[in-house]
Amino acid sequence: MTHLTSPQIAVMFLGLGTVLGAARLLGELVKALKQPAVFGEILAGVLLGPTVLGAVYPELFATLFPREGNVAIVFEGLVTLAVTLFLLVAGMEVNLSAIWRQGRAASVVSVSGIVFPFVVGLSSAALFPGVLGREPGADRLVFALFFATALAISALPVIAKTLMDLNLYRSDLGMVVVAAAICDDLVGWIIFAVILGLMGSGDVGQGPTIGYTIGMTLAFTGLMLTAGRWIVHRILPLLQTRTGTGGGVLSFALTVALLCAAFTEWIGVHAIFGAFLFGVALGDSPRLREQTRATIDRFISFIFAPLFFASIGLRVNIVEHFDLLLVVVVLLIACLGKVIGCGVGARLGGMPWRESWAVGFGMNARGAMGIILGLLALQAGVIRERMFVALVVMALVTSLLSGPAMQRLLREEVARRFTTYLSPRAFLKPLEAPDRWQAIRTLADAAAAASGLDPQAVCTAVTARELAMGTGLGHGVAVPHARLDSIRDPILAVGVSRHGVDFDALDGTPARLIVLILTPARDSGAQLGILADIARTFSDPAAVNGVLEAGGFEEFRAAVDSRPGEPARA
Amino acid sequence: MTHLTSPQIAVMFLGLGTVLGAARLLGELVKALKQPAVFGEILAGVLLGPTVLGAVYPELFATLFPREGNVAIVFEGLVTLAVTLFLLVAGMEVNLSAIWRQGRAASVVSVSGIVFPFVVGLSSAALFPGVLGREPGADRLVFALFFATALAISALPVIAKTLMDLNLYRSDLGMVVVAAAICDDLVGWIIFAVILGLMGSGDVGQGPTIGYTIGMTLAFTGLMLTAGRWIVHRILPLLQTRTGTGGGVLSFALTVALLCAAFTEWIGVHAIFGAFLFGVALGDSPRLREQTRATIDRFISFIFAPLFFASIGLRVNIVEHFDLLLVVVVLLIACLGKVIGCGVGARLGGMPWRESWAVGFGMNARGAMGIILGLLALQAGVIRERMFVALVVMALVTSLLSGPAMQRLLREEVARRFTTYLSPRAFLKPLEAPDRWQAIRTLADAAAAASGLDPQAVCTAVTARELAMGTGLGHGVAVPHARLDSIRDPILAVGVSRHGVDFDALDGTPARLIVLILTPARDSGAQLGILADIARTFSDPAAVNGVLEAGGFEEFRAAVDSRPGEPARA
Repeated sequence: MTHLTSPQIAVMFLGLGTVLGAARLLGELVKALKQPAVFGEILAGVLLGPTVLGAVYPELFATLFPREGNVAIVFEGLVTLAVTLFLLVAGMEVNLSAIWRQGRAASVVSVSGIVFPFVVGLSSAALFPGVLGREPGADRLVFALFFATALAISALPVIAKTLMDLNLYRSDLGMVVVAAAICDDLVGWIIFAVILGLMGSGDVGQGPTIGYTIGMTLAFTGLMLTAGRWIVHRILPLLQTRTGTGGGVLSFALTVALLCAAFTEWIGVHAIFGAFLFGVALGDSPRLREQTRATIDRFISFIFAPLFFASIGLRVNIVEHFDLLLVVVVLLIACLGKVIGCGVGARLGGMPWRESWAVGFGMNARGAMGIILGLLALQAGVIRERMFVALVVMALVTSLLSGPAMQRLLREEVARRFTTYLSPRAFLKPLEAPDRWQAIRTLADAAAAASGLDPQAVCTAVTARELAMGTGLGHGVAVPHARLDSIRDPILAVGVSRHGVDFDALDGTPARLIVLILTPARDSGAQLGILADIARTFSDPAAVNGVLEAGGFEEFRAAVDSRPGEPARA
Repeated sequence: MTHLTSPQIAVMFLGLGTVLGAARLLGELVKALKQPAVFGEILAGVLLGPTVLGAVYPELFATLFPREGNVAIVFEGLVTLAVTLFLLVAGMEVNLSAIWRQGRAASVVSVSGIVFPFVVGLSSAALFPGVLGREPGADRLVFALFFATALAISALPVIAKTLMDLNLYRSDLGMVVVAAAICDDLVGWIIFAVILGLMGSGDVGQGPTIGYTIGMTLAFTGLMLTAGRWIVHRILPLLQTRTGTGGGVLSFALTVALLCAAFTEWIGVHAIFGAFLFGVALGDSPRLREQTRATIDRFISFIFAPLFFASIGLRVNIVEHFDLLLVVVVLLIACLGKVIGCGVGARLGGMPWRESWAVGFGMNARGAMGIILGLLALQAGVIRERMFVALVVMALVTSLLSGPAMQRLLREEVARRFTTYLSPRAFLKPLEAPDRWQAIRTLADAAAAASGLDPQAVCTAVTARELAMGTGLGHGVAVPHARLDSIRDPILAVGVSRHGVDFDALDGTPARLIVLILTPARDSGAQLGILADIARTFSDPAAVNGVLEAGGFEEFRAAVDSRPGEPARA
């Protein structure tokens, strides 16, 4: 019987503990530097992997992270499980109705984001195979197709994590990027299945045919987003009443996610898509309480995601197989193709230029997908180590670039603090409201009175947005909001509730400070800027308490202005 | 490079999802029948394992749960991880100060609970080796030592789960059982290391020597419970302020648990002891918020524990190698040895007979430890399949017996509802108290006034108990309590708070119904009975609301008595 020996078990736990600890530590350090935690997590893998630890203490590295044998297999299984569960959470965060609202922009971004880089990749590989490092024996067409696909795919896990880290995941812009990335990834994996078919790789050649894979994928996606959602909405309330503490929902979510993952792996696309699509069906249900969501989310974001991202750096020695020319060329072609393709697509889809470029850089991240693709190509003999390293570096650099680039492009939208848009007439203390709908109505009336808008229209727009997803930020702050066609500048109203009002925040705290935000429909940057400024101002719970104690409007404004907000134009 | 193929990944996810789903489903069904969930979880493994699925659809079974190759290895790694993390939670629930209080009883139970069954096992194996199925070629001494050890060890994970399922884990009796089981397990594993040394098994023979293992184990245990606790108490507040949502504490807990597991595996005892001891150091810290504890607890109790318990049944075909005579003989010797040894030990330690037998049956569970021990002996050639099956059946039956036997022995202690001990003078509505300390003071005054006790003494005893661990049960109910030398019958006081008072409940709900419970020091059964009756009465949140609306004392009493409580004497 195959069996883990005692030394193997010790190594397994030691390796897991080391990777998890290092990834979380560096992740938190990087977060303290205002960068997405995923950088630190990947960096932990590079430090513990062949590049640094393996180069300095090769024996320690070989003992801790063996490349062969049982421990390596267990690690690979755990990492596969980790990335699949991470995609479950990413799926749960997708707001389908927001995606349908962004449908036009998302579909244009998706199509031009895959066609343009694919064409650029295909033609450069066909024209300059030598510079791009095609091995003499490799098939010209297969190599060109592979290279084009590597440029065309996106990295949904990295993109999702970057957007979450930047608090952009639930914004309209985040939804466009995620919707386009989902489409691109599905198409990318189908193209890759075609390439593997052309290569006649033993592994996949015996597997399902390409037509079957495509048909089953589309059918599964369609079913999951219609019947699947319907069934989930019926089952969740039953589970929640039957099993007190949310254990039923937790187990149901994981069980079905694992079964869906098995199904999509079996039909020929990667397991992560099954978990992702089930996550979409699950998370879209208004019946899933934010607290159950938070339990799943915490465990996966703080344990499984760091494990997976660190494992990327563990796989390969970046220094040994580094070919500077190849790296620069691959990186340039990759960035040009994706940023221009997606950026122009977003502009054609009706977004302003600045946001379009942000979409382009967001989609540019290749992360894990690029590396997995490269790994499979390496194993199939299409490329050799130096091209693999170039692809890994390209994937890392594009992933590392996307966060700061988006942050920089979007941050510049805010020149002023959110208090600029307040007026004494729209400051209500105390705000008496038994629930969030009444709180929204009262604040909408105040905002309308201060600006001459129709109170009913304001209330309807904000309520509709609130119904789609609760706007509690946690720490006792809520930000109900809407975009209106009829205004040219942002309008805000502030209410301070004595007992707090439930706005379905992740931390379960009722909101005592409620800021109603109305922004012009055409200027989505204003909304992003104001939301970011409020989130930044009240990231420290002490700030909320200080502001709540303010006696009147001027005191409130002074208290907010004394706190650091979102940095202004760089 | 070793590598999981796509079909292997699909099988891995399918197997995991099936096991998790079946284990949780049967676990919930068994819980609905008022039995510990662990029965259903083990049963799921028997149904999906070689005994049922393997017998009916052998090909499906072989595909879903391969015994060889990569998928089997990944499963084994995951199950090892699962049981280790489960022991982390079991450790977090251990209340060290309660164990010290129970020191005398626990040490007598522990010593007589290991010596008596060991002697019984050793002598019966020496006298009747034929009946007990010693293989002709096997060494007589090694076989006898092995059989004696298999009878002497306990199964900490099963015992912990059974106690948790019966709501006995935090009780004084539960602490005696757990303390004794920890000692027995440590001693049992050390003896087993000696046996493996005698057999000269290749696996362990190259490993650490026996003296080294014993010395390092004692040193690690000592360090963890002194310096380890001290460091944890210093680090937790730092982590909690630095990393908002508890992600820091979660990652810290898992990282250090994995490293401790690696360490104990490396020094020659099983990985689970490292995780367990770290759990003790972690959970004992008053700085660990109940909500962080709940996040870890939920994920592990609802995901990892069911996975592990189901895996027990997956390992072996119980029907094929079933030898009725051998099974009955082994089972009888095992039960007699352990129940009598521990029961008499508990009586000598000063517990009443009824509780002593409950301790005996609690300690009788062999669960996973017995099976792991048997598996290692099977691999080393000391026993063959039919003895292995007899040990597995013995482990399962003793595990299955312990819950119902304890429940039956302890349940009979309650003849009356808790309202019997109430008086109108000790019913406070509304109870005005800003925090739990003030609530305890006010209720202690009322209880003392109604019974002529010293109010200060009552308040001090209850406050001391509350400081050790919060008594919030969840659903808005709290049960501050203490045992007093000076009383002969239980005395209760009830307070109904309008706004609720935080009693550090797992679900975070402030307590609106607060029942102060004073019981005679010599009659621990009264405390268990009253706590069980209250937990049972208010297991449904609707019952709490109904009772809170009661206008006065008589109405309150009638409302409680109309609800089903803990069943009276059977």
